[in-house]
Amino acid sequence: MPTASPTPDLPTFAHVQRAAQVLQGVAHRTPVMTSATADERTGARVFFKCENFQRMGAFKFRGAYNAIANLDQARKRAGVLTFSSGNHAQAIALAARLQGVAATIIMPHDAPAAKRAATEGYGGKVVVYDRYRQDREEVARRLQAESGAALIPPYDHEHVIAGQGTAALELFEEAGALDYLFVCLGGGGLLAGCALAAKALHPQCTVIGVEPEAGNDGQQSLRKGEVVRIPTPKSIADGALTTHLGRLTFPIIQHNVADILTVTDAQLENSVRFFAERMKMVVEPTGTLAATAVLEQSLDLRGKRVGVVISGGNVDLKAYARILAGPGDQTDSRAA
Amino acid sequence: MPTASPTPDLPTFAHVQRAAQVLQGVAHRTPVMTSATADERTGARVFFKCENFQRMGAFKFRGAYNAIANLDQARKRAGVLTFSSGNHAQAIALAARLQGVAATIIMPHDAPAAKRAATEGYGGKVVVYDRYRQDREEVARRLQAESGAALIPPYDHEHVIAGQGTAALELFEEAGALDYLFVCLGGGGLLAGCALAAKALHPQCTVIGVEPEAGNDGQQSLRKGEVVRIPTPKSIADGALTTHLGRLTFPIIQHNVADILTVTDAQLENSVRFFAERMKMVVEPTGTLAATAVLEQSLDLRGKRVGVVISGGNVDLKAYARILAGPGDQTDSRAA
Repeated sequence: MPTASPTPDLPTFAHVQRAAQVLQGVAHRTPVMTSATADERTGARVFFKCENFQRMGAFKFRGAYNAIANLDQARKRAGVLTFSSGNHAQAIALAARLQGVAATIIMPHDAPAAKRAATEGYGGKVVVYDRYRQDREEVARRLQAESGAALIPPYDHEHVIAGQGTAALELFEEAGALDYLFVCLGGGGLLAGCALAAKALHPQCTVIGVEPEAGNDGQQSLRKGEVVRIPTPKSIADGALTTHLGRLTFPIIQHNVADILTVTDAQLENSVRFFAERMKMVVEPTGTLAATAVLEQSLDLRGKRVGVVISGGNVDLKAYARILAGPGDQTDSRAA
Repeated sequence: MPTASPTPDLPTFAHVQRAAQVLQGVAHRTPVMTSATADERTGARVFFKCENFQRMGAFKFRGAYNAIANLDQARKRAGVLTFSSGNHAQAIALAARLQGVAATIIMPHDAPAAKRAATEGYGGKVVVYDRYRQDREEVARRLQAESGAALIPPYDHEHVIAGQGTAALELFEEAGALDYLFVCLGGGGLLAGCALAAKALHPQCTVIGVEPEAGNDGQQSLRKGEVVRIPTPKSIADGALTTHLGRLTFPIIQHNVADILTVTDAQLENSVRFFAERMKMVVEPTGTLAATAVLEQSLDLRGKRVGVVISGGNVDLKAYARILAGPGDQTDSRAA
């Protein structure tokens, strides 16, 4: 298993390029959208890479498919196993089915109903654990020992990171040179992969990570120079409720990312409404993280060309409707 | 004024091609999206032309811009005038501003708040009338007589029809030959323009119009062979609450459209939820008309290549949230 090595080699831009070949004709080449309103508000030219239109509704398909494609035939026959708060689960389930591989998904008990149903709909077998009482990595290792299945973790895996980086590769191919690239992070797989692509293609591009204020372990880690662990955060950004960066993602982020910013749940909800009303797109709260830092003008971006990765659009419709209906209906928000 | 002629010449495919040149680099070339779920449900290969991502959120920008562009300089200086239930209003306001032309919009008193605000936001001057007590065309003619402004009606205008047809032109350029093309209709401008493009490019393509069941004047007209007028219908498809086809749109539809189908408000709401949950797109109820006939399998489309025009995505967020929250919250539906 790649991540079991005590001194892992870090993936490079060459891994991202190979992943792009693997994903050719399999992953959607998602559209890059612009918005006159976003440009007016920020004074920048903003390019949104819309991974909410990716297969299964999030960028996670890229890394999951690439990781399974890199298994040899014997390992594929033993099946794959993962733990996930949602989108990686669906990604593994779909990517495994497309490659004729059995998939088992370890999922938190409070994962959105729509995400669990979709995972099972793609043919994945779901095993539930308690997010606040059990360590998902331990549960995964136990099941792995029993079945011999290959564990494909959500972010700390060279081929997962490389696959996610193809989102930025496509964005640069379409938008050209950018002054800034904003990418969300939970465990940092997307951010690490996109940063590899950005720095190889346009070394002058400033890469910024964005995470929920309640779960700012990435920001703390980058500023302290080592991986900081925090208790499981609570935020409506349910795809970014990680407690720490990975052994692979942290050093890549440390070397390639200029800063990590945070945004609040209330700001994320504003962005969810912005995307629905102005850009006619369903974006899940986690999916708006990077865009929120841009729209809330966390940095002065006037006159700049700015890339933003919108990471996903998988919502529970009733919860999504509550956000759209406005702040007056937000008494059940999980914001700390 | 083009529509004042007693025996108007009908626009042709050449008008659509010229409109495409006018709109080049001005209108968005909207994406064509596909959905594995839609394909599985219908047994067809369905191509959705996403005009909800058009400038100001609907296909109406195409016709409005093209009509204003075809005015001579003297007429542009006198300004433009229109009546509209919403999207055409925003389209005229934005298209006029982009061409340095003043715009006055006559709007029903019960138009969605978001649409009125957006129209004013684009710089249009709004004049209100009562949808159930006043004839909007009469109000328009009176204001026109006062100001000398050019009246650009929402659908019964050669350059409006030609502009709308460019949506189908682009769809065929991207998707290739299609067995069916489904297009919504209110007054029939989009349907007429798209039918001109379909029949010129792929004569074997069967063009189907779709309108709300409560406002089936188009279906009645096509089957009776003459324009049938109905009272102002009530439906959540607020962009299709027209009472009759036009002097230009009816003969084009009669010669180029195979049939007109109807769908119910409850079916439209199902489609609104489908687009949000499965395709991550905000589509207004009117915008789902054509897709609804396909998704509800009004025709057997198995094995066929099917084009669908999604016409717009301009929603009032609170009303949209009520639809997303589900049928249990639909006590305020305006369905008859």
